[in-house]
Amino acid sequence: VTVSDLTEAELIARIQARLPPAPEWVVVGIGDDAAVVEPERNRLQVLTTDSVVEGVHFDRRFTPPDAIGHRALAVNLSDLAAMGASPRLALLSLVLPPALPCSDFDGLVGGLAALAERHRLPVVGGNLSRSPGPVVVDVTLVGSVKPRQALTRSGARPGDALYVTGTIGGAAAGLQMLQAAPTPGQSDARPAGGDGPGAAPPTSPSGDEGVRRCVLRYLYATPRVKAGLLIARNRAATACVDLSDGLADGVRQLARAGGVGFRVDLDLVPVDPDALQWFEARGPDASIQALSGGDDYELLFTSRPKLAGRLLPAARHAGVPLTRIGVCTAEPELLLRRDGGSESYLPMPAGFGHFG
Amino acid sequence: VTVSDLTEAELIARIQARLPPAPEWVVVGIGDDAAVVEPERNRLQVLTTDSVVEGVHFDRRFTPPDAIGHRALAVNLSDLAAMGASPRLALLSLVLPPALPCSDFDGLVGGLAALAERHRLPVVGGNLSRSPGPVVVDVTLVGSVKPRQALTRSGARPGDALYVTGTIGGAAAGLQMLQAAPTPGQSDARPAGGDGPGAAPPTSPSGDEGVRRCVLRYLYATPRVKAGLLIARNRAATACVDLSDGLADGVRQLARAGGVGFRVDLDLVPVDPDALQWFEARGPDASIQALSGGDDYELLFTSRPKLAGRLLPAARHAGVPLTRIGVCTAEPELLLRRDGGSESYLPMPAGFGHFG
Repeated sequence: VTVSDLTEAELIARIQARLPPAPEWVVVGIGDDAAVVEPERNRLQVLTTDSVVEGVHFDRRFTPPDAIGHRALAVNLSDLAAMGASPRLALLSLVLPPALPCSDFDGLVGGLAALAERHRLPVVGGNLSRSPGPVVVDVTLVGSVKPRQALTRSGARPGDALYVTGTIGGAAAGLQMLQAAPTPGQSDARPAGGDGPGAAPPTSPSGDEGVRRCVLRYLYATPRVKAGLLIARNRAATACVDLSDGLADGVRQLARAGGVGFRVDLDLVPVDPDALQWFEARGPDASIQALSGGDDYELLFTSRPKLAGRLLPAARHAGVPLTRIGVCTAEPELLLRRDGGSESYLPMPAGFGHFG
Repeated sequence: VTVSDLTEAELIARIQARLPPAPEWVVVGIGDDAAVVEPERNRLQVLTTDSVVEGVHFDRRFTPPDAIGHRALAVNLSDLAAMGASPRLALLSLVLPPALPCSDFDGLVGGLAALAERHRLPVVGGNLSRSPGPVVVDVTLVGSVKPRQALTRSGARPGDALYVTGTIGGAAAGLQMLQAAPTPGQSDARPAGGDGPGAAPPTSPSGDEGVRRCVLRYLYATPRVKAGLLIARNRAATACVDLSDGLADGVRQLARAGGVGFRVDLDLVPVDPDALQWFEARGPDASIQALSGGDDYELLFTSRPKLAGRLLPAARHAGVPLTRIGVCTAEPELLLRRDGGSESYLPMPAGFGHFG
């Protein structure tokens, strides 16, 4: 059974069955020409839209359907996190090939619904369209933030410290592991059910557990929504960006938007240990490979050095490590310092773009 | 030069160059992780998302790029119109093949920007992605409506009169004319510039002017934003839907949502005269062909018979004709009455869906 065997109304009903009931501030939900909601009082609205496209952002040969739905929502939650905003509602636009099996449709919607439920995020409307080619999942999120608490990309000033949440490189390594594996079963890498990664390439130096961790990191990345909220609330941060296109790209974005430069200490960058092993086995400059890899959904932000003490409680509450990895400079240059030495500067590697 | 020759930042700059400057209530606009806006006071928010997909909603062989951009915004404006809402802001998500010429990119964005400007609608954010296949343009709109003035699909009650704005069938005829024409030049059908339709099929009974009108109607449909606002404001209307999928489909939607039926008088349906000639030359039941055709973007709504007098000023102000075409019935059936006779009922034809 494929999606073309069902009517649009039947497909919408299948989506609704997987979503939690809408909260009372949703006046008109799914099924009309548009959704109607009561706005939040005394908040600014934060809006973002981002799509994931088959063959560009995911490969259906090794990405289970629920991971596609998860990713489509996670990239957007990560954008709101980078603004310090609370997610409030979602719109879901699906462009689907008629031959898509209904079980894949259900899986995709289920993966998105599971992440939405974790953030108590109602899906208030959307759209279904046929695709003559790839699967495209386009999610729009509306969030909210208190006035003057929105974190933009442009606030970094010389002397600010540069921080990153969590670890980097894990998702990029996970993707490479999946690409290196001999066409795994689509559902073998799910976190629940199944007792092995199924997608383990034979030559992993990290062992099966390391592969499994990186693969899950890639397939089911956790957007740093709570960390973004807490970082924005205590006013220590001056600028923030999310790392969907990699750390090198994030540093470049903060520099461009702020008209400043950055010096990053490569030794301080918290590269995922499993990813580091993987990259080391594959070529020189393992840390630099990690800097170029995308899909981590960590937050990169700057902080006034004096206010950095406020960051520790934020990190503790969000349950995610914060690492200082560099400093903002007046010179609009991007420099990587290696081995603590002040001599051995390297240019920043290119980012990981999804266009061109 | 194609879009793959430009960076994402360069493409975004080309979009911004075509858009009017953002109003002051846009706190953070294009270029950050998300947009930040001040909400409107004392209004409900109305949200809609809709995509147009190459090969499904448009054919690039005979749809000029600016008409693709126009359509992507018009379908969404039409959804807001059907809710009686004012459009406030837009988000634009583009999924583009790398081989798309930059001139087509500029045309597409320009067509969207021109319609946005007509509605004083800022584009506050969006997303660009590469496509391994078709062009996909996904627009999200946020609008606003006064509390208790939102028009839904579900309010029709037995005895209510059924009205439609404007005329129907023109867009469907225009599409057929384009499909019948020998691969016209992409830009020949634009309203400004050029002195002929360029896409005229040789066998048109309506003459070149009729063909030109229908083709323009299809390519540059006018969403009934002002009519929707005025119909909702004077509280005469009880339910409303837009006709993007055709009149037959619209009647079906109002019936399903309201748990009611409708009797439509075929003789009263305001079929576009050029379209009627076109359909008559192509088969029997020309009016029924018009009822099944999509893309008209008119509004179909019900009104309490006692309050119908309020509709005339609304129509006058919106500058669009309103025509009573039927009545809402308690029996949940859809019937077409022909030639004024009460005997000759026909079942409603199927609608024009974009899925399955």
